[in-house]
Amino acid sequence: MPHIELESHLPGITGLLEYRKDTGQPIRELTQILMRGSSTLTEGERELIATIVSHGNQCRFCTTAHTAAADLLLGEKATTRAVKEDIESAPVSGKMKALLAIAKATGKNGKLVTPQMVERAKAEGATDAELHDTVLIAALFSLYNRYVDGMATAMPDNEAYFDTLAERIVHHGYTRLPQGYDHLKQ
Amino acid sequence: MPHIELESHLPGITGLLEYRKDTGQPIRELTQILMRGSSTLTEGERELIATIVSHGNQCRFCTTAHTAAADLLLGEKATTRAVKEDIESAPVSGKMKALLAIAKATGKNGKLVTPQMVERAKAEGATDAELHDTVLIAALFSLYNRYVDGMATAMPDNEAYFDTLAERIVHHGYTRLPQGYDHLKQ
Repeated sequence: MPHIELESHLPGITGLLEYRKDTGQPIRELTQILMRGSSTLTEGERELIATIVSHGNQCRFCTTAHTAAADLLLGEKATTRAVKEDIESAPVSGKMKALLAIAKATGKNGKLVTPQMVERAKAEGATDAELHDTVLIAALFSLYNRYVDGMATAMPDNEAYFDTLAERIVHHGYTRLPQGYDHLKQ
Repeated sequence: MPHIELESHLPGITGLLEYRKDTGQPIRELTQILMRGSSTLTEGERELIATIVSHGNQCRFCTTAHTAAADLLLGEKATTRAVKEDIESAPVSGKMKALLAIAKATGKNGKLVTPQMVERAKAEGATDAELHDTVLIAALFSLYNRYVDGMATAMPDNEAYFDTLAERIVHHGYTRLPQGYDHLKQ
């Protein structure tokens, strides 16, 4: 049961963003710019970063949601599963392995990102902008994970919810749904 | 040395918010609304929450900055010192002790916030809105701490920098400085 009274039809982060809309709005905007804006990292790669951070922080709602989004963008479910199990043996590029390791460390504590981890990413071709965005995505999902779990928000009643949520954030992004899309709410 | 090239005259978070302005803007806005907007928690209490979270995450830049801001708002330096040493014996209200404990736990991992910690805060008079804002402030500073340390940003050359920064965030808030205030930059 959530620690405060939230609308029961809005599980996880969705109820929190509605609970206080004025703080929800810049959180949505930041996420949209970072996860869907122009970048040399694909949207699938960025969702993989969100997934590994949420997984490392053991946030079940966020991990399930961003796994579903990454799966939809990548067109398969093997990569997210492998990355969550072991980054080094996962079927992603050397650059992505280095960036995912940095993201996972950042989600725990920024001090865990060592110069060696950054050197490895640069040697694999990561740019300053990619390193910056990886750390900021990890920091943003550290916010989400703590917001969602610190308020003890509910999981949805059924797992199919996450397929709908993934469709929504892949096809409509992270900003508020336009009128007429209310059927996408649970 | 920072992991990526940042403007050397902008230490800590300030160089990051300038490095990518489009993501910096919603971060600034969220902080302004949450830390300076209407609330039953005073600005000093909210800065205390930012301080304890940053201290718990061992982020030196953020801890020093928000300690200085809290000190300026509270008009003394004893409370921040005591809170960082031991929340329970610090000279703050029972409600603030409960909220600070929740904030510190959230900064580590949201799952560390127990129903008992929330019950205690409610028994001390904390409202749902205050609980929500405490967790969101803790989540936001978890973002800041990880962004600042994950990029290995620099500390300023001299400690007086933080007095200037505190003056700025207390008197001008967290949004971008209007033109003519550039002398407040280091």
